[in-house]
Amino acid sequence: MRFPTLSKSKSPLFKSPLSYFKSFSSSIPKSPLPFSSPSFRYLSSVPSTSTEKMSKDKSFDRSAMESILTKRFFYVPSFSIYGGVAGLYDYGPIGSALQQNLINIWRQHFVIEEDMLEIDGAIITPAEVLKTSGHVDKFTDLMSKDTVTLEVFRADHLVEAVLEARLESDLAARTAEAQISKDSANALSQKKQKGSKPPVKLSDDIVNEYNEILAKIDNYNKIELSEIITKHDIRNPATNNTLTPPVEFNLMFESFIGPTGTHKGYLRPETAQAQFVNFSRLLEFNNQKMPFASAMVGKSFRNEISPRSGLLRVREFNMAEVEHFVDPENKAHKKFSEVANIKVRLLAAKTQEKGSTELTEMTIGDAVAQKIIDNQTLGYFIGRIYLYLIKIGIDPEKLRFRQHMSNEMAHYACDCWDAEIKSSYGWIECVGCADRSAFDLTVHSKKTKEKLVVRENLETPLIYDAFVCNINKKVFGPTFKQNAKPIQDHLESLSQSELESLKQQLDSQNSVTIQLKDNSSYEITSNMMTIDKQTFKESVREYTPNVIEPSFGIGRILYSLLEHSFCVRPDAELRAVFKFNPVVAPFKVLVLPLSGHDSFQPFLLSVARSLRSKGVPARVDDAASASIGRRYARNDELGIPFAITVDFQTVSENTITLRERDSTSQVRGPIEDILNTCVELVNGVSTWSSISQKFQSVSPSTEE
Amino acid sequence: MRFPTLSKSKSPLFKSPLSYFKSFSSSIPKSPLPFSSPSFRYLSSVPSTSTEKMSKDKSFDRSAMESILTKRFFYVPSFSIYGGVAGLYDYGPIGSALQQNLINIWRQHFVIEEDMLEIDGAIITPAEVLKTSGHVDKFTDLMSKDTVTLEVFRADHLVEAVLEARLESDLAARTAEAQISKDSANALSQKKQKGSKPPVKLSDDIVNEYNEILAKIDNYNKIELSEIITKHDIRNPATNNTLTPPVEFNLMFESFIGPTGTHKGYLRPETAQAQFVNFSRLLEFNNQKMPFASAMVGKSFRNEISPRSGLLRVREFNMAEVEHFVDPENKAHKKFSEVANIKVRLLAAKTQEKGSTELTEMTIGDAVAQKIIDNQTLGYFIGRIYLYLIKIGIDPEKLRFRQHMSNEMAHYACDCWDAEIKSSYGWIECVGCADRSAFDLTVHSKKTKEKLVVRENLETPLIYDAFVCNINKKVFGPTFKQNAKPIQDHLESLSQSELESLKQQLDSQNSVTIQLKDNSSYEITSNMMTIDKQTFKESVREYTPNVIEPSFGIGRILYSLLEHSFCVRPDAELRAVFKFNPVVAPFKVLVLPLSGHDSFQPFLLSVARSLRSKGVPARVDDAASASIGRRYARNDELGIPFAITVDFQTVSENTITLRERDSTSQVRGPIEDILNTCVELVNGVSTWSSISQKFQSVSPSTEE
Repeated sequence: MRFPTLSKSKSPLFKSPLSYFKSFSSSIPKSPLPFSSPSFRYLSSVPSTSTEKMSKDKSFDRSAMESILTKRFFYVPSFSIYGGVAGLYDYGPIGSALQQNLINIWRQHFVIEEDMLEIDGAIITPAEVLKTSGHVDKFTDLMSKDTVTLEVFRADHLVEAVLEARLESDLAARTAEAQISKDSANALSQKKQKGSKPPVKLSDDIVNEYNEILAKIDNYNKIELSEIITKHDIRNPATNNTLTPPVEFNLMFESFIGPTGTHKGYLRPETAQAQFVNFSRLLEFNNQKMPFASAMVGKSFRNEISPRSGLLRVREFNMAEVEHFVDPENKAHKKFSEVANIKVRLLAAKTQEKGSTELTEMTIGDAVAQKIIDNQTLGYFIGRIYLYLIKIGIDPEKLRFRQHMSNEMAHYACDCWDAEIKSSYGWIECVGCADRSAFDLTVHSKKTKEKLVVRENLETPLIYDAFVCNINKKVFGPTFKQNAKPIQDHLESLSQSELESLKQQLDSQNSVTIQLKDNSSYEITSNMMTIDKQTFKESVREYTPNVIEPSFGIGRILYSLLEHSFCVRPDAELRAVFKFNPVVAPFKVLVLPLSGHDSFQPFLLSVARSLRSKGVPARVDDAASASIGRRYARNDELGIPFAITVDFQTVSENTITLRERDSTSQVRGPIEDILNTCVELVNGVSTWSSISQKFQSVSPSTEE
Repeated sequence: MRFPTLSKSKSPLFKSPLSYFKSFSSSIPKSPLPFSSPSFRYLSSVPSTSTEKMSKDKSFDRSAMESILTKRFFYVPSFSIYGGVAGLYDYGPIGSALQQNLINIWRQHFVIEEDMLEIDGAIITPAEVLKTSGHVDKFTDLMSKDTVTLEVFRADHLVEAVLEARLESDLAARTAEAQISKDSANALSQKKQKGSKPPVKLSDDIVNEYNEILAKIDNYNKIELSEIITKHDIRNPATNNTLTPPVEFNLMFESFIGPTGTHKGYLRPETAQAQFVNFSRLLEFNNQKMPFASAMVGKSFRNEISPRSGLLRVREFNMAEVEHFVDPENKAHKKFSEVANIKVRLLAAKTQEKGSTELTEMTIGDAVAQKIIDNQTLGYFIGRIYLYLIKIGIDPEKLRFRQHMSNEMAHYACDCWDAEIKSSYGWIECVGCADRSAFDLTVHSKKTKEKLVVRENLETPLIYDAFVCNINKKVFGPTFKQNAKPIQDHLESLSQSELESLKQQLDSQNSVTIQLKDNSSYEITSNMMTIDKQTFKESVREYTPNVIEPSFGIGRILYSLLEHSFCVRPDAELRAVFKFNPVVAPFKVLVLPLSGHDSFQPFLLSVARSLRSKGVPARVDDAASASIGRRYARNDELGIPFAITVDFQTVSENTITLRERDSTSQVRGPIEDILNTCVELVNGVSTWSSISQKFQSVSPSTEE
């Protein structure tokens, strides 16, 4: 994962390296800081995509979901008995299994099916490597401090929060004004009773200026942001103290390797570098064949200034990254036809440049044919990313591919698309897919002097003529002595046209005078050297591959999936359910007895054991104190897709019931048959509709 | 994983916390430092287990294996194009897949089959947590520096290497002496010609002293080690400079969380702490039922002073740890009968204390019955560890369980067994299995004031009588005013017998005088207070669970498995093969064409695709330039268990051949049948001997 940015400054001057080192987070919505209530943003006079990204899903009750996530230990702040640490989370049994399943499906979908070379590189990375890649100098965010309390803020976030709060207050004032003029002062006094600060109306000019700043908030450099803070008197809202001018803060965690305290290292901010530095070994492993892809799954680290938005902006996170190495002169993909007919929702750069966020639904084949997507390989990965996200349960209606605009794209990229998933936080970048050219291989190669190139035998050798100097060493050496080497170096540095003119001179005058860089001159005669035209034949082509990099933020995908899976049963108690599909569900089968009767126990154990031995995670809930209805409900909260109940008929007839979570419909059948069916359902070999005809349907337990 | 140690000092005085914070490494053999050639050690006059652990497998050619590991990119030093970093390794496609398979099988064997609660906690850990657990103060090794070059050494390793080199030199001198007296000076002069330093003979007393030091090398504290360095004039062998006295070096990587530079954190040295601090949530998730186990797989970090021995002592490594929480008063295990008949090789503490290293083969049932293994739960996990290691392919002849001796066991442990695997480095601790009592839960609870306990409803409530003070607040309060609270606190702190005697006094004299800690005295009269005997009923028992902790070093297991799987075909070319079983093998099936004929390509692609879609990693080797024999050979080096060949019969008859790696025998059958058979073989549903009868046997390709 590189550092995709949103709406970078439109000035080409700002395409400095800074722009491609913004953190993998800029498309995170501007979620409320503690002192700013959720708000919508005025439409700026210049419509911007970030406005669109802010639109929240109002129908979704995030706090209801979050209370279940915490109560059922999906994930919690790390070390919470010690007060917790911002931006660090511990995944409990459900979160951990969900994460593992997302990774396993990813491995099957990418590594195995695409025959990628997965590696597992070190987390601790020497400073030198990250200096070369640019991270040491450029992987920074801007930070301001409260001048009195010294509390630290990410400067752009603070400006944003303050301006949003002011705009919100202005909106309230305008609404109240309208109300007053319409139907007395009633509304205003009601508003005031809520205990919020009295709304402050702004001038129209200021509203426009604030909106313009918000639309460009990701783009400002240190000086610009400092000017905005001064001009608009941005302060710490909690203390009303002024702020220090923003300074760069490097987002990498620093440490020292070994006992001497001199060998500096960092925790990797991405998994990509380990793949680049191993390029030659990977190519060798692939029997020198191109194109090929490496892959890596693992933790990366970013020391965020002020982490927020739950799993969306954290200090430690799992990524899965692919580096697909490809011939820069041929980015066709041999399996492209397999994704060409997939329809995806695209938000192309051109559309955004027109100020629109309208999605275009089209096939990947058409998008590549029309050059909306730059090349087949990029298109192929967009298709595979789409298939992966749909497979795990992302709602296709809430998935779009947004192309980077030219002003937000890193200088090395010729095209970049983000898979953005919509949640209550807005459209979140969850997968980046960039064509990164040869940037990293080139810089590492330059730094280490190791060739990171492909050598390709040419089917038709390249044949060409060229002028060369043929030196008669017996005369040349003794004539020029210690100057022979510099003179020879100079001759070798000459271009073909310079050699040609030298040859004409030498041929006509039998002598030439050359001048070195230090202004010394030497006369070379034709008995010392001739310049001749020779024919050359090259049968090997050497090139630095380009890299196409699909990069997945597992935590962000996981969080989006939680929102897309969360729903409420439309019954009296509004019970919460996570509708995980069987492939991603942490536990696949719930096993429970109808009651606490002793005769059920051996069946529970043997059923659970049989499922587990077949690799099916099963949860037993035999708490005699809870009704079967309550036990169904509390396990619905864990998203368990199937439930097996052991009852008196099990004891007398050796049959069990199987319940499907979403429909709550149930069938009954012999134990062995039901268990085998479970394995099929869980592995996606069968579906509920296909199997429910095979068994006797039963009415749900009266207790449910 | 805790920090199991070997042969700690025999003095009970040394059972300070230091002893349980030795790094997870002490049973690593004393492998040669660059300046010390491989050596065997004299048998000490007091036989010691560490002597036995040193015995190397002389028949195994480690360098032959290592050259293949590097050439085929199993794993390599990280960032090697930048010169590499000691103790950091990148796993290539084979090493990475092998590691992933070991972890997947572990998850199936432990987490799913045993219904453990797997979590995924943060790597970055606040200093406060590791201060409580003892790591900040005690997780250290002793370090000495060359007084001139300032080169850094792990002090115990350096002493060991120097003494071993001196003993080796002594042995050479004694051998030479014996030779001279036997058959002229020939042998000695030959020895000298090898360019090694002239051997130096030591006195018998010195030899004995050195051997005694070596036997106890893991036990010395800072002062003792310093004395040894001085007394025996230990120097840096490379420079002959003296050394600084040893000082403690903390093995944790340090960093700062957030931008302020004040919130210190460390990279976790083990995964255990995240499980302990989440104990209450885990218990809640398990519906308050005991016993239960949590589990975690992930990277841990130890900033070793001088990493060595390849994957065996590294700075960053994957662990898999189980924390099984159990009632301290009942360590029976309900599934114990399932492992009771497993025979394991035990090296009990008693045997070692007699100076023997003889293994006892016995069933786990007998070992628990005879109290050799302390309890059923510990025995159950030893059985499960055994089954896991055998399942992945560890040679049972090279696996033993060694019990910690009382002098090497941490103070909280009542029993501890290491699964040790024999390789060319000697017996290596690969899994620790300790009964850790309530140590961690107690210290975290004390520090955070969070109760980390189990509350258990008692079936039979506990009924008992006790004396209590009943205070008449209306009189007591006004009488003592601001002193009422301290007096009441004092009364509440009294024991039952003190209360009883107070009651007698009060009943007989209608008044008592009590004295507080500050020596102030107060008279209490019977109108202010009565002391009465009351009956109490407790229906809840509260206790801190004990923890049984099986802890797996994945890298060490992986390395041991490589050695146990490495062999050489007894043919002319001595081709190397890794005999991975199908479950752990990185690639399961090799797909190759008989030759470069065009008609084979579509079959290759469809066979590979079909296997991959079924989750079977397949490698295609269609390099037309290499003979099929050469291609078999180079893929044997990757340990691929099965190979499918596409040949002219495939094109004409739709059949393919399937070759089994170890026997090199081959069968032929219709494509679909062979592919389905492959899936069965890979998943362990079928074996080669069972399937080879189903198909037509074919003679191996003449090219092989």
